[in-house]
Amino acid sequence: MTFFAGRWVPAPDHVSELGGNGLPAGFRASGVAAQIKESGAPDVGLLVCDSPEVTSAARFTASGIQAPPVLLCRERCRLDALRAVVVNAGNANAATGRPGLDNAAKMQGSAAMVARVPEDQVAVCSTGVIGVPLPMDKINRGILAAAHGLDAEGAGAFAAAIQTTDAFDKRAALEVRLPSGTVTITAQAKGAGMISPGFATLLVFVQSDAALAAQTGDLLLGVCVKRSFERVSVDGQLSTNDTVILQCSGESGVRVEPETDDELRFGEALDALMRQLALMVVRDGEGARRVGRVLVRGGAPEAVEAAARSVANSQLVKTALYGGDPNWGRIIQAVGAALPGTAPLAVDIAIEGVQVCAGGSYVPHDAGALAQAVARDEVEYEIGLPGEGAETEVFFSDLGHEYVTINADYTT
Amino acid sequence: MTFFAGRWVPAPDHVSELGGNGLPAGFRASGVAAQIKESGAPDVGLLVCDSPEVTSAARFTASGIQAPPVLLCRERCRLDALRAVVVNAGNANAATGRPGLDNAAKMQGSAAMVARVPEDQVAVCSTGVIGVPLPMDKINRGILAAAHGLDAEGAGAFAAAIQTTDAFDKRAALEVRLPSGTVTITAQAKGAGMISPGFATLLVFVQSDAALAAQTGDLLLGVCVKRSFERVSVDGQLSTNDTVILQCSGESGVRVEPETDDELRFGEALDALMRQLALMVVRDGEGARRVGRVLVRGGAPEAVEAAARSVANSQLVKTALYGGDPNWGRIIQAVGAALPGTAPLAVDIAIEGVQVCAGGSYVPHDAGALAQAVARDEVEYEIGLPGEGAETEVFFSDLGHEYVTINADYTT
Repeated sequence: MTFFAGRWVPAPDHVSELGGNGLPAGFRASGVAAQIKESGAPDVGLLVCDSPEVTSAARFTASGIQAPPVLLCRERCRLDALRAVVVNAGNANAATGRPGLDNAAKMQGSAAMVARVPEDQVAVCSTGVIGVPLPMDKINRGILAAAHGLDAEGAGAFAAAIQTTDAFDKRAALEVRLPSGTVTITAQAKGAGMISPGFATLLVFVQSDAALAAQTGDLLLGVCVKRSFERVSVDGQLSTNDTVILQCSGESGVRVEPETDDELRFGEALDALMRQLALMVVRDGEGARRVGRVLVRGGAPEAVEAAARSVANSQLVKTALYGGDPNWGRIIQAVGAALPGTAPLAVDIAIEGVQVCAGGSYVPHDAGALAQAVARDEVEYEIGLPGEGAETEVFFSDLGHEYVTINADYTT
Repeated sequence: MTFFAGRWVPAPDHVSELGGNGLPAGFRASGVAAQIKESGAPDVGLLVCDSPEVTSAARFTASGIQAPPVLLCRERCRLDALRAVVVNAGNANAATGRPGLDNAAKMQGSAAMVARVPEDQVAVCSTGVIGVPLPMDKINRGILAAAHGLDAEGAGAFAAAIQTTDAFDKRAALEVRLPSGTVTITAQAKGAGMISPGFATLLVFVQSDAALAAQTGDLLLGVCVKRSFERVSVDGQLSTNDTVILQCSGESGVRVEPETDDELRFGEALDALMRQLALMVVRDGEGARRVGRVLVRGGAPEAVEAAARSVANSQLVKTALYGGDPNWGRIIQAVGAALPGTAPLAVDIAIEGVQVCAGGSYVPHDAGALAQAVARDEVEYEIGLPGEGAETEVFFSDLGHEYVTINADYTT
C-alpha cells in the first residue's frame, strides 16, 4: 500500500493496489519530450482507447476565462465517447484568442490522425504558462513521436508528460473487485499550484476496463469530483484549463449497471481514488511541507461551506500551518470574516482533538500538546458552528518560503 | 512633503504638512510600555479630548467574530461624543468571551477615571494576539502611567503604543485651509497584517480642532472609509478588532457646516489623509517590498469589484509582484476565477501602461519594457471588462519571504 498511505482516505476493502505502468485493457499511452518546456522534460502526452465502444465523461473549470482547449472540448467533442486525449505541458494555450482556438483544433486533428480515431472523439488539454502562443511545430513533432511510443505500459510516461511544477507523480493503478467481476482503474493527475476548484480542477485522467453506460460514468464522475477536487485548495486560485476525464473501455467484460452493487462498489473505488489524488495535489501544493484538513459542522450549509473555504484559503492560517504555530486566533478570525453580521458567534474549535475554543471563547488547554500536534505533517482542525446537520471538509496546503520561491519567478 | 510622497494620492492644494508630535487644539495623548508586549515596546496608549463639546464618529469591523472591545464600543459608548480612547497593543482581547467583555469594561472604567470623563465617552481598542486573556494588572498600571504622560505633543508616543507588527509609523499632521479658516487634522494608524476591510479595518484615530456636527463627521468618515481602508488588501484577512475613530474638538472655532465649501474642503483633506494612510498600511503589509494598484473598469459594478478583489487577493499575483515577474497570465486567471459563467470573456489588461492583453487574447509587447516596469516599487494594473460606467481600485501588497517569516511564527 503506497497510494492510500495517509490517514484521511482509507482504501476500500474491495480495492487492491497494482504496481507498474500498466493501463486497463483497451488503453495505450505515451509521453515524449518535445522541447516545449525549456528543461527538456517530457511535455506531450497521448492516451488512446482502442475500443470503439468506449464511454466517457468530463468536467471542466468554471472560470470566466477558459483556455481554447477547454472551449474546444466543450464545443467540438463527443464528451460521452472520447477515444483519445492529447495533452501538452509547458504552455497553457490560454488567453491566446482565435489563434489559440485554431491551434487547439490543430492538436485535435493531428492526434485524431495518428490515433486513427474521429476528431470529435479526441480531447485536447494544455497546461503551463498563460498568454504565450503554442509552438505548433514542436507540438506536432511531439504528437507524432508520442504516437510511435503508444504502449499498454505507458501510464508512467504519460503521467510524466502532463506535469508542470509537480514535485512528484500523482497516479494510481487499482484492482477493484465488483460482485460481477474484477476490473482495473488507473489514473494520472497533475497539479500543484493555481488550485481552488469551482467545478473540476487541474488535469486528471482516469481509465477503466469496466463497461459503463456514459450516463453512469457521468453521474459517478460528477459526484466524485464534488467530493475530491472541489474540496481542496493550494492557493485559492481557480485555473483556466482544469479538466477531468474518465474513460471506460469495457474490455474487462464486466458491466456496471445503474443502481446495482457493482455501481456502488465501482463508485466507492472511484471516490477513494479521486479523493486520494486530490489530497496528493494538496500535498504537492507548490513547496508545501504540511497539509491541513478543516472539518466544519453546523446548522447552515452555506455558513459551513463559507467557513471551511475561508480557513483553507487564509494566508494567515496557511503560514501558521507552515511554521507549526499553534496560533488558533487565526482560525477564529477566518471563520468570523466568512460570516459577517453574525456577532457574537458561538464557535467551537479543536485542533488535533485539543479543544482551544468553546462558544466563541478560549478554553484553557495543554499548550505543549498542541504545539507538538501542529508540528506534524498533517493537522486537523474541527470547527463547530451553531446548529446541526451540515458538515463539510476542505484539504489545504501550507504557505511557506518554497511557495514564494516557486511563484515569485515562474515565467522568468 | 513626506506624507504625500507617492504618486497615487496627491496632496490637495489647500493642505500642508506639519511636522512634529503636536495634536490639534484640545487634544492630549501619550503612550507607555506596560510589558504586555514581550519586547518591552510601548503598548498602552491614551488619547483625550479636553473639550466637552467634542463630536465623533466611528466605524468597526464587519467580522462575525468581534472582539469584546469592539462589542463594548458599539453597545456602551456614545459614539457621537467620544472624549477619550484607550488602546492596548500586544493582546487583541478577542475570543475571550464574558471575561473579555468584563476586562474591556474595566479598561473603559480606568481610562474614564484617569481622564476624568464619563465612561460612555471612552472608546476601548485592543490589538495583538487573539485568544489570550488580558493581563489586567499590567493594563491598569499602563493606563495610570499613560494618564501622567498626557501631552499636547503626544502624537508620536501614542502612535508607537498602538503598533504590533508595523515596520514604520503611519501618522500625519495636516494644516487644512478652509474658506472659513484654518484647521488642523492629525491621525495615527496601525496595521500591517490581517488586512482586508469589510467595513473599517485596523486601528485608525483621527483628530481635528474643526467644529463639526456629529452627523457631519459620521457622513464624512463613512465616505472616506469606503474610499480608503475598504480599498486595500494585505492578506485578504478581515480582523476581529478593526476600529476607526474621528474626533473633533471644535477648539479652532472654525465651523464646518453641512453642504458648504468648508465641508467639501475638509472632506477632501480627510479623504487624502485616509487614502494615504491606507496606502501606507499596504506598503507596510507584513514584509512587503512592492505595492500594486489594480484599477478595473467595466459596465457591471459587481463584476468590477469582484475582479479587483480577486486580483488583489491572489497569492499568485502577489508572489509575482514580489518577484518582479511580468507573468500577466495570473492577472487574467484571477479575473476569470472571479467571474464564473462568463466565458469567453473579453478582458483588456495593461501593466504600467504596457498593453499585454486585448479582448481576452495576448498582445505582442515589449517584454523588456514590461520587465523593467514590474521591478519598480509600485506597479499599476489596469483591467478593462466589457461595458462602461463602473470603475474601482484596490491597493495591495506583495507576498514574499518576509511575510512568511513574520507569520509562520507569530505567537511562538
